Amino acid sequence: MKVFVYPGSFDPVTNGHMDIIERAIGICDKLIVGILINNKKESTFSVKEREDMLKSALNGRANIEVTSFSGLLVDFMKQNNVTTVIRGLRAVSDFENEFQLALLNKNQYPDMETLFMMTSSNYLYLSSSMVKELAIYKGNIDSYVPACVKEALIKKFTNI
Amino acid sequence: MKVFVYPGSFDPVTNGHMDIIERAIGICDKLIVGILINNKKESTFSVKEREDMLKSALNGRANIEVTSFSGLLVDFMKQNNVTTVIRGLRAVSDFENEFQLALLNKNQYPDMETLFMMTSSNYLYLSSSMVKELAIYKGNIDSYVPACVKEALIKKFTNI
Amino acid sequence: MKVFVYPGSFDPVTNGHMDIIERAIGICDKLIVGILINNKKESTFSVKEREDMLKSALNGRANIEVTSFSGLLVDFMKQNNVTTVIRGLRAVSDFENEFQLALLNKNQYPDMETLFMMTSSNYLYLSSSMVKELAIYKGNIDSYVPACVKEALIKKFTNI
Amino acid sequence: MKVFVYPGSFDPVTNGHMDIIERAIGICDKLIVGILINNKKESTFSVKEREDMLKSALNGRANIEVTSFSGLLVDFMKQNNVTTVIRGLRAVSDFENEFQLALLNKNQYPDMETLFMMTSSNYLYLSSSMVKELAIYKGNIDSYVPACVKEALIKKFTNI
Amino acid sequence: MKVFVYPGSFDPVTNGHMDIIERAIGICDKLIVGILINNKKESTFSVKEREDMLKSALNGRANIEVTSFSGLLVDFMKQNNVTTVIRGLRAVSDFENEFQLALLNKNQYPDMETLFMMTSSNYLYLSSSMVKELAIYKGNIDSYVPACVKEALIKKFTNI
Amino acid sequence: MKVFVYPGSFDPVTNGHMDIIERAIGICDKLIVGILINNKKESTFSVKEREDMLKSALNGRANIEVTSFSGLLVDFMKQNNVTTVIRGLRAVSDFENEFQLALLNKNQYPDMETLFMMTSSNYLYLSSSMVKELAIYKGNIDSYVPACVKEALIKKFTNI
Repeated sequence: MKVFVYPGSFDPVTNGHMDIIERAIGICDKLIVGILINNKKESTFSVKEREDMLKSALNGRANIEVTSFSGLLVDFMKQNNVTTVIRGLRAVSDFENEFQLALLNKNQYPDMETLFMMTSSNYLYLSSSMVKELAIYKGNIDSYVPACVKEALIKKFTNI
Repeated sequence: MKVFVYPGSFDPVTNGHMDIIERAIGICDKLIVGILINNKKESTFSVKEREDMLKSALNGRANIEVTSFSGLLVDFMKQNNVTTVIRGLRAVSDFENEFQLALLNKNQYPDMETLFMMTSSNYLYLSSSMVKELAIYKGNIDSYVPACVKEALIKKFTNI
Repeated sequence: MKVFVYPGSFDPVTNGHMDIIERAIGICDKLIVGILINNKKESTFSVKEREDMLKSALNGRANIEVTSFSGLLVDFMKQNNVTTVIRGLRAVSDFENEFQLALLNKNQYPDMETLFMMTSSNYLYLSSSMVKELAIYKGNIDSYVPACVKEALIKKFTNI
Repeated sequence: MKVFVYPGSFDPVTNGHMDIIERAIGICDKLIVGILINNKKESTFSVKEREDMLKSALNGRANIEVTSFSGLLVDFMKQNNVTTVIRGLRAVSDFENEFQLALLNKNQYPDMETLFMMTSSNYLYLSSSMVKELAIYKGNIDSYVPACVKEALIKKFTNI
Repeated sequence: MKVFVYPGSFDPVTNGHMDIIERAIGICDKLIVGILINNKKESTFSVKEREDMLKSALNGRANIEVTSFSGLLVDFMKQNNVTTVIRGLRAVSDFENEFQLALLNKNQYPDMETLFMMTSSNYLYLSSSMVKELAIYKGNIDSYVPACVKEALIKKFTNI
Repeated sequence: MKVFVYPGSFDPVTNGHMDIIERAIGICDKLIVGILINNKKESTFSVKEREDMLKSALNGRANIEVTSFSGLLVDFMKQNNVTTVIRGLRAVSDFENEFQLALLNKNQYPDMETLFMMTSSNYLYLSSSMVKELAIYKGNIDSYVPACVKEALIKKFTNI
């Protein structure tokens, strides 16, 4: 059984992430969506909230597991006995960071393989931080995030 | 069964290509190595020679099929009933061309998925044309190509 | 009256070019579409054919003039007493070439100003050469070129 | 009447900004210089100070209005009934951010058009933050900022 | 006597830095390794600790002087009567920053010359911050830093 | 004695090349300017003409030797017992090609070191082919090439 890991902050999940998830599940048997717990970076949503939004957006879709991890990605991969990671690429600057990470991870864990998918052209400009910026100023985010995320963003930024 | 296509000119196959093949076979059940027949570009080796070198280098490795095709990659994919293509990325300039190709192919054939692997750091500077340039001037190509390709290159460029 | 020049090979015009033309005419009073006659590069369509396709695609649209020129763009600009040129940007590699050209032209003709527009995300992968490649192998080009160009491409490549 | 918006932080305005303003006014009838009020990012100068420096540097130049705005650029554009924005490009990394912003803004406000100008070659390395870094350590900034900005920087960093 | 300066944060020194130092000393008569004291950025190690690690890693190597400086690099160069600076390049994003810095420094100090060396392919993904991230989570850093730095990192992050 | 090699086509030498030569001689004791004889690429000027123009432009400057070579750069370096090569960088696309070449050469000849200098900002857009394009159409090339090269270009393209 081919199991892939798709790691990220998902703070919150966007339709760009959803698109990669849909396409990734098409080439593996099971996909583990891993939410990175980064204590050094302040997040907008808690890990629990991010996990709930992902699960709600995925709506019980078979073969997809949503979980979280802290520490190094290579350790998370080893603990799950998985060697293949999926990453989306949007731009040249993504490419460089991802290239360095892929080389580093290969060096730390030689069995590890990173697969890249190009972001669909209608999500090229999409990022979690951009969506939050729009939500704060009541821009239209309907086509950028799942419905449950839209609701959560409105609730979050109305409280400010 | 997951079948992937790895297309290219392979004029001739290098250790950079061999590295991608080895890694790709690890994440699919069968890999079709497709030699692109490009009548508009002069090649150093004939399609038959390129196919023989690939087969010799792969040495009857299970689950790998070497074949050739002309025309559009999307048509070759459809004829083989395969939707996933593998491509290696070496540099930012590769990234841009590949990005445009992936978007185009997705538009021509919405089921098609392109997966990218980063070239290993010891093959970053490797290309078929660079290897031929070295071979012409008797540079050392031992670590850049399979043994059978080295032989073929020496024979080819001694006749000049 | 603000007059802009939009130069290119237009061999043939694509919907990517048409998109830039539509958007450019929105910010000037008159647009001169200038077909570059490059004797050093073989073209698929004659200058007359390229001009006819552009005119047919533009369908007598007011405020747009289609013409051709040879030699330096700066001389064409001076002859038409125009100082502003419009260019579309698709990718980082476009950016670099265009940057060098803009600096050069500014040095040759200090009054000259180059304005860049980003290609719409659905035309990011579109180029005249890509459309011709598709047309040769009977790929679907309906959404890439105006109807008259599609016809001309089919006629051109059926004769091969 | 063609009205363009040139948005930015202008913390403080540099000769690179002044160069874009000069060139932009040449292709429109009126230019609105919009100072972005970003409450999340600490600024060196207050919005009032930045506005005063811009006005002093522009010295009552006709057809240029200096103002400030908070929130989304698209909302500022709509409020002013303007559809064209001007941005300067210095480097590939600028290009990518700007590309994503232009696509996003087009999606939020389809009538909006972003025009890019390449920074003059003598301002390629110029940024507000670099000028402040130099001013702190008493580097020579004479050719980087208008005289009134130089004065304000010296005053600001002598008080430290 | 050719004297070069190699400036950086060295927080801490990595084998990527050591590689540039080794190669730089081969083309000059004396190399000054200058640790930049940046009061605006929190560092992991004190200037004294960074200096000690560098000296220990260099092990009394002839012709190399380790020192520290605050303020502008151009002032440090002038004080030492040195005009040539050495910088390592890892990636396109490095290239752009370094390009802007080199142009700026040339403008501030016309005699100054910046020489770039490409990072060796096995250190392409190496940075001080990446090494610290690995050290925090007990990743393997043996091949990334000198032995004395490994020890210091373990001690530093065990105390957390 | 530090000897550096500066290789190139110099077809013809431009002020961009001259700038690198001037700056390179400042950091070595002797500079060998090596004209690459490339039989696969048609040149505008013969090797003899290119050598004469370089010598005339350098005007007997001490410590600079002009010569030509065919084959691999590494072999030319070995024959001259030189290990350091100088290259100019203009743009990101230069950077990538040069990066791959530097890694390749290091692999072929481990003692070899490639030093890069950033092109001065007023020569960023300058290339031999651009200068020839301008010369053909009688553009102003006074600030782009030495006087003797200007003369040679005018003579060459008047004969067409």
